[in-house]
Amino acid sequence: MKALWLENGDIKLRTDLAIPVAGPGEALIKVFYSGICSTDTGLMSGLYDFRGIPGHEFVGRVETGPSHLIGKRVAGEINIACGECHSCINVGKKHCSERKVLGIREHPGAFAEYVTLPVENLHVIPENLSSSVATFIEPLAAAFDIIEKIDINPEHRTVVIGDGKLGQLIARVIKTKTDNLVVLGKYPEKLSRLPDSIDSTDQAEELYPQYFDVVIECTGNASGFDSALRLIKPGGKLVLKSTYPTPLSIDATIFVVNEIQIVGSRCGPFPRAINYLKNEINAKDIETLIDKEFTLTEGVSAFEHLKHCRRQDKQQLKILLDITG
Amino acid sequence: MKALWLENGDIKLRTDLAIPVAGPGEALIKVFYSGICSTDTGLMSGLYDFRGIPGHEFVGRVETGPSHLIGKRVAGEINIACGECHSCINVGKKHCSERKVLGIREHPGAFAEYVTLPVENLHVIPENLSSSVATFIEPLAAAFDIIEKIDINPEHRTVVIGDGKLGQLIARVIKTKTDNLVVLGKYPEKLSRLPDSIDSTDQAEELYPQYFDVVIECTGNASGFDSALRLIKPGGKLVLKSTYPTPLSIDATIFVVNEIQIVGSRCGPFPRAINYLKNEINAKDIETLIDKEFTLTEGVSAFEHLKHCRRQDKQQLKILLDITG
Repeated sequence: MKALWLENGDIKLRTDLAIPVAGPGEALIKVFYSGICSTDTGLMSGLYDFRGIPGHEFVGRVETGPSHLIGKRVAGEINIACGECHSCINVGKKHCSERKVLGIREHPGAFAEYVTLPVENLHVIPENLSSSVATFIEPLAAAFDIIEKIDINPEHRTVVIGDGKLGQLIARVIKTKTDNLVVLGKYPEKLSRLPDSIDSTDQAEELYPQYFDVVIECTGNASGFDSALRLIKPGGKLVLKSTYPTPLSIDATIFVVNEIQIVGSRCGPFPRAINYLKNEINAKDIETLIDKEFTLTEGVSAFEHLKHCRRQDKQQLKILLDITG
Repeated sequence: MKALWLENGDIKLRTDLAIPVAGPGEALIKVFYSGICSTDTGLMSGLYDFRGIPGHEFVGRVETGPSHLIGKRVAGEINIACGECHSCINVGKKHCSERKVLGIREHPGAFAEYVTLPVENLHVIPENLSSSVATFIEPLAAAFDIIEKIDINPEHRTVVIGDGKLGQLIARVIKTKTDNLVVLGKYPEKLSRLPDSIDSTDQAEELYPQYFDVVIECTGNASGFDSALRLIKPGGKLVLKSTYPTPLSIDATIFVVNEIQIVGSRCGPFPRAINYLKNEINAKDIETLIDKEFTLTEGVSAFEHLKHCRRQDKQQLKILLDITG
């Protein structure tokens, strides 16, 4: 089969790969669409030690597996847990200490014609939802994890720091809980991609006299983290959603003196994301975040395009790979 | 009056100071006992920009103030709030953005014969509780703040990192909630000061195969913080109780990937601390943490003694100043 292959920071197209075989409890899925995430470009820069097929945001059709799923369109949770370790039993499968992660750790990913996943990871996609928009289910679920972890209500002044792919989704999710929301971004063009009903600014200073009850940091860089510490009020909650490529220098005393609570958040609940996208207005809005589609054969160009845009400081939002194209 | 005076990192005895005058809503208190806290030695090293009389753990008798308090023995909360700012109204007085702090920020402290505090800060001390043990009310309240902020129950595996003054108190407070507790310390002598019913070790490696639901970091140094990150399980809670003299280099990605929650905690509820010390067994146990008493006149020697012990790596627990001695 065809797939993109990551090795030593380089990505290339391979056409010589065998279709994977579903093991016990697994399904084989023919991939329709995959989304490129910042984690994928992070892998190219050595974020984790991964060699193989990347890609973890996808939609496809079940080819082999339990009969009730055969032929169904599905999205898939990315953590493949052992189900037996201390963390699986006591914390939850997404924290399995032996876990493999689709396209990220020890399990071939979805920039490929076929992929396998445990059946328990799969979620059937509603018929009226397009496959391209459904690729957002995985990152949208990660955004929904925030409101699983902390209460946000209309009285909470909330700021999302980051105007990128994840920030865009998070802002929309938080908006379902409070109108008292502003997005702090860096790029006016990206901020303009938010719905009109969400306030935004690229001028951090405009916000500084304010104190926010909830700050959601999704830039994954030190300057975003610094802004977060300037914007949060004493007793406030700081949600961290992005990984950081290098260690941060942090004056942890401020956490103690101002009694700040930090909440780390990773993957989230697929059913809530699917439910959100069942609403046609939401689905149409999310579709506007797609900047470009490439076929799998053009996959290397997709990454070159991203690199080119970054060099020109013309950031892109979502790039999709149409695997059947 | 006599008092210790901190200026440019040096502490000296002064005998030429005027007795402070209680303002509206304040009481004048004749100080009986004061405790030396790590924050006081921190002030000498420039932790905050403070010049004047330090000392914030104290017991004394109300001299002037409301009639129902005159002659009563009291301990006092250290944050002096404006009561009018955004933080006072929306967060709580201990986070007043204009606050003064007894012996720490813009308000003369309790290493003195007399001190003033707002009446609302004062708590009457039970008659059967000695003044020396009652000086622990302030730091003990800070320890109780942890169980105000997070639930700890007997199923939670909990580790306290730090065998110093605060760690000793915290371990005792956590023990009221769970037997599933171990203290990780550095000094066998200090660990031996814990009640026999509390497990302890000075070998971090002994704990590493374990994963703790709750980690309480009260060393205030980078190595304690590193141990905390090694000991906490995914989804666990890390409570920070100590200030850090310098910024920490932190791989914040671990907070995100392991979905760790960090809870900063500072001052706490005096009534819970007083209630704890009403129990005679508890009061006797806390008394064992007092290593030495000095008179106020010998106050400079008290700080020299601490410095001397530190140089010899013979850490001390609580040093008290007997102000009436």
